[in-house]
Amino acid sequence: MKLQLMYSFLRPDIEKIEKELKQVITSEQPLLQEASAQLLQAGGKRIRPAFVLLAAKFGNYKLDAIKHVATALELIHMASLIHDDVIDAAPLRRGKPTINAKWGDRVAMYTGDYLFAKSLECITNIQSPEAHQALSKTMVELCKGEIEQIRDKYDFNQNLRAYLRRIKRKTALLIAASCQLGAIASGADRDTVNRLFWFGYFVGMSYQIIDDILDFVSNEEALGKPAGGDLLQGNITLPVLYAMEQPELRELIIQVHEGTNRTAMQAIISRIKQSDAIEQAFAFSERYLQKALAAIEPLPRGQAKSSLQNIAKYIGKRKF
Amino acid sequence: MKLQLMYSFLRPDIEKIEKELKQVITSEQPLLQEASAQLLQAGGKRIRPAFVLLAAKFGNYKLDAIKHVATALELIHMASLIHDDVIDAAPLRRGKPTINAKWGDRVAMYTGDYLFAKSLECITNIQSPEAHQALSKTMVELCKGEIEQIRDKYDFNQNLRAYLRRIKRKTALLIAASCQLGAIASGADRDTVNRLFWFGYFVGMSYQIIDDILDFVSNEEALGKPAGGDLLQGNITLPVLYAMEQPELRELIIQVHEGTNRTAMQAIISRIKQSDAIEQAFAFSERYLQKALAAIEPLPRGQAKSSLQNIAKYIGKRKF
Repeated sequence: MKLQLMYSFLRPDIEKIEKELKQVITSEQPLLQEASAQLLQAGGKRIRPAFVLLAAKFGNYKLDAIKHVATALELIHMASLIHDDVIDAAPLRRGKPTINAKWGDRVAMYTGDYLFAKSLECITNIQSPEAHQALSKTMVELCKGEIEQIRDKYDFNQNLRAYLRRIKRKTALLIAASCQLGAIASGADRDTVNRLFWFGYFVGMSYQIIDDILDFVSNEEALGKPAGGDLLQGNITLPVLYAMEQPELRELIIQVHEGTNRTAMQAIISRIKQSDAIEQAFAFSERYLQKALAAIEPLPRGQAKSSLQNIAKYIGKRKF
Repeated sequence: MKLQLMYSFLRPDIEKIEKELKQVITSEQPLLQEASAQLLQAGGKRIRPAFVLLAAKFGNYKLDAIKHVATALELIHMASLIHDDVIDAAPLRRGKPTINAKWGDRVAMYTGDYLFAKSLECITNIQSPEAHQALSKTMVELCKGEIEQIRDKYDFNQNLRAYLRRIKRKTALLIAASCQLGAIASGADRDTVNRLFWFGYFVGMSYQIIDDILDFVSNEEALGKPAGGDLLQGNITLPVLYAMEQPELRELIIQVHEGTNRTAMQAIISRIKQSDAIEQAFAFSERYLQKALAAIEPLPRGQAKSSLQNIAKYIGKRKF
């Protein structure tokens, strides 16, 4: 079952956001246009816009106002993917060449900057200082998360805390902001806004942990890039941290560097998969999901709440 | 005479902005802190904060509100310098190694991102949707300007119009926004806000043209980098456009590429200096200055207006 089916009743609205995105990235500059369009066409689950819309259902749902927030959040996400790929020198994203691979780091840097700026332009359509503050804060944290990721690369002595702080900044806070801003833009009450923020935060933490697991257990076809890529790039994720608790495995893992060859990597990956590191990481993710569900438990029943609950449960189970 | 003397009565306030900047860039991440601090310590004229403060003098001047705007604009400027240096692969800025030269393009990209984000955080202290919109728009234009600069590199067939659009986006609009936002933040009336915007715009155009002239006529000591660097990097500026109107000089100039050696560059630079291209460019800049002065002519007399007039005149004359 596909994630998008969890919010299929929102499909016409998501399609409007899609159109909005297309319009926003339309630029008189061919290079900018082409680079942004490639990422847009590559798709993506539009999960952040979906969270914005679902959260807005707990207030006074008006698509014409909310669409700007949903578009802004997807644009920030796209921009951060582009800059991420520069940091990671990633050749592929969703099975297609990244902007840095195709046009170089500098074009990627500026395409990302442009989408960030466009995102801000979108959000100014919402006249809520609270919303602007929340978004700016999220962007600051996103940047900090990226800097931490550079700093912590190939640092095999980092602890769980460093990992959690990084995924909080890199992923969870943007999903939290999606829920929060959807609720703010629809004028939901304070308690609802807070509950949705925390729901997004916990779901985001869980989502990133699962993503980090999938990088080991999934295959090249599903990932659009070779498995184990995170570790090869020096990104120490939760499964790796658990695996390193076993001295023998630790010895193997700490030898990974940029030049480690494919055969050696495959051996390490299968050792990690055979250990209980993957299971432990799943259990950790599960705890966040339970917290996410608890956060919105008191909110009024309805299609939006069911969708959020289903998305959370789906995220915990995806194991393709 | 130094530019800063034109607004020496603002010195205590500029010093507060300086403190604010130091505080804003304080980060728990040593690399980020060090990279930002280097740029901050390298100084700079803080001309954008000065324009914010001077424009605010035409309204209800309250430093506690206005300082956020002034800080935000200097941060955007700093961020764009950092990303500029990545684009230009510049080794030096104000006589010191650039962030990209010292720590690489990726760190420079993220330090810039961080300062952009911090800038947004600052501006959210001002509860004016108009101010937020103006700033976002400026950032979009700034990005477009940079992309154009990449696209137009070593394009010796570009025309005056392309050059003017580029410097508008890269420089003039940020100075225009400084004046505009200072006036908005102090609650100045609509006509005053508009006049100050245009003053900043015209001054900014003139300022950039003079900067582009200085890159030819100034020396390495004053520039903090070798003269003629713009042309060597493929940035076709106004003096070059004028020089290329002479067929013989054009033949020489269009042969410039990244690998052109120092001796050949010096020969071309001295040919450009001997032509009347420099003078023509000065005359062009002068026309913008006159427009700048005309824009604020109707504003009430006083220390702020005199400062703005003196700055404009100073910019037209700086020939070190």
